[in-house]
Amino acid sequence: MYHALIMAGGSGTRLWPLSRSNRSKQSLKLVGDRTMFQQAVDRLMPLFPPERICVVTREVQSPLLASQVPDLPVTNFILEPIGRGTAPAIGLAAIHLRQRDPGGIMAVLTADHFIAQPERFLQVLRDAALIAADGNLVTLGIKPSSASTGFGYIQQGKRLADLEGFHVFHVEKFIEKPDQETASRMVNSGDYSWNSGMFIWRVDRILNEIERQMPELFEQLSQVEASLGKPEYATVLSRVWPQVTQQTIDYGVMEHASDVLVIPTDIGWTDVGSWGSLFELLPADQEGNIFIGPCLEIDTHNTLVFGDKRLVATIGVQDMVIVDTEDALLVCPKSRGQEVREIVEKLKENKQSKWL
Amino acid sequence: MYHALIMAGGSGTRLWPLSRSNRSKQSLKLVGDRTMFQQAVDRLMPLFPPERICVVTREVQSPLLASQVPDLPVTNFILEPIGRGTAPAIGLAAIHLRQRDPGGIMAVLTADHFIAQPERFLQVLRDAALIAADGNLVTLGIKPSSASTGFGYIQQGKRLADLEGFHVFHVEKFIEKPDQETASRMVNSGDYSWNSGMFIWRVDRILNEIERQMPELFEQLSQVEASLGKPEYATVLSRVWPQVTQQTIDYGVMEHASDVLVIPTDIGWTDVGSWGSLFELLPADQEGNIFIGPCLEIDTHNTLVFGDKRLVATIGVQDMVIVDTEDALLVCPKSRGQEVREIVEKLKENKQSKWL
Repeated sequence: MYHALIMAGGSGTRLWPLSRSNRSKQSLKLVGDRTMFQQAVDRLMPLFPPERICVVTREVQSPLLASQVPDLPVTNFILEPIGRGTAPAIGLAAIHLRQRDPGGIMAVLTADHFIAQPERFLQVLRDAALIAADGNLVTLGIKPSSASTGFGYIQQGKRLADLEGFHVFHVEKFIEKPDQETASRMVNSGDYSWNSGMFIWRVDRILNEIERQMPELFEQLSQVEASLGKPEYATVLSRVWPQVTQQTIDYGVMEHASDVLVIPTDIGWTDVGSWGSLFELLPADQEGNIFIGPCLEIDTHNTLVFGDKRLVATIGVQDMVIVDTEDALLVCPKSRGQEVREIVEKLKENKQSKWL
Repeated sequence: MYHALIMAGGSGTRLWPLSRSNRSKQSLKLVGDRTMFQQAVDRLMPLFPPERICVVTREVQSPLLASQVPDLPVTNFILEPIGRGTAPAIGLAAIHLRQRDPGGIMAVLTADHFIAQPERFLQVLRDAALIAADGNLVTLGIKPSSASTGFGYIQQGKRLADLEGFHVFHVEKFIEKPDQETASRMVNSGDYSWNSGMFIWRVDRILNEIERQMPELFEQLSQVEASLGKPEYATVLSRVWPQVTQQTIDYGVMEHASDVLVIPTDIGWTDVGSWGSLFELLPADQEGNIFIGPCLEIDTHNTLVFGDKRLVATIGVQDMVIVDTEDALLVCPKSRGQEVREIVEKLKENKQSKWL
């Protein structure tokens, strides 16, 4: 059977002060009335029954996330004691799924991206499952809309098959976040997709790749797997997990796997990674302003005010981001949203954990 | 005897969102640990016993102000039902003082200015009282530190007398807020002072001038005076006061009075009229920043953050004012602080009184 696994363990430090250590990006209402996580679940509902939608996240994040999707069985939340990167998270989910459904296929999906065309997204998930059933490791690529240096890229090789509206390619190479020149060259060539971090594969197939390429992780997963469904599961997991090495699935598995395919897609995908990216997603008024919450402006242009209950008054403000939360405020030019991460780093250094 | 009258009826709309309709500028801690009003009282204490320090303010403002200066007798708060400008306020206080002390001298003082040299201020108050005792209307001028267009000016005429460190001049002319060119010419000439709105005169003398120049106001004051100390006082005042015409003491009395003198002073006087003026008063760090409350900055310069408990984080912010209060926030360039008044006007238009 076909299972969806939503990866919801990230924190999203670039969306501080809205995102916090106990209030991850996924749990926030950034676009529309539903949280990013709720939207990630909502769009899967036509294809997956709730009992086949799983979530892997960190223990501290799960109560808030679980409360947002009461339709999902709580047993479908697979909890990491601490975050260890995508490879261990996927491995942990895979051993859970293997126990439930040894012949299953899993779609590894994200909760921190906006997808404007959910029906087309489900179409490619359907198609990808057919290809994954043959033992291929399928990744969803995103047709680039700009020469972004913020994403990894996937180089397409030989075209393997054509599906309904999608082409399937062998993966030639995974490329880490490039410099501007390389990004421009890749995007102009038409042979590259952005790496979306979404994958479709058979559960047994990904566990075999982990066994082959990440034997230490596989051994650790096996210890956990032996305790599955037994009273000692939590004890074993909390003993094993701190010893697991941090690793991404791209670096740990995908770059050196065989039978890796990519399906470049145009599903209206947007990374909601920073305040700058919300400028692209949220509708602006004719002055280019996006005002969330009560605002009063004089001569203000191209400015995002992400407020809540308090009144935000701006005079002569241009190209800025103002984020107003209950206990912290951010004022930052639109172009420097990446530096929000440094604010979070400073808070950590200063041990000002109440604002983290 | 010598009485001090602190005028504390203004609201200070240019210091929104810190100043509000029920939280006037005078009642705020803007510079240091004491409110503007407390500082206005504090600096008078060496010269005036508490029973000779009176306050004229609006009824709605008095509970907060009275609570800030428990040493002043509550009966020294002279309350206007509504504000009518400085001429009626001074007239009202004068009839109260005439009843207490018919031969008294009063110093009309402000609560919304900062005075860096309070001892020198008291010295000029002492000297001015001597001159006022002869029946002169004395105004305190401020030696201009810049060609400001934000103040009225006083042109000095013939020099009348020299006191300890001060000169006394006849007033040639009161000049309303000038344009930039006129301001520069006046300041360069050395013959002009800023009009501080501080006056020293005999109580009977100012009432005579009001009688001569503002007969309607005098008639209204007489009605109130007849009820002084009687049970009907409040009723009479609340009937008469709404009919009183709005007027300033400068326009209503001073411009056409005789025996008007000016003492130009250098007492470290600063008008705390706008957020821009706080830049001059508050000590800045080496980047030119003034941070009140918890702040975290990256690449921030010449910026005033006037916060409270919440964290204010700034990235790449220059020459800005950020004022963070419990229920409202202002972001505005330093150079445009005067436009804060327009925000307050908009709130009134929109009937958003919770933020007024």
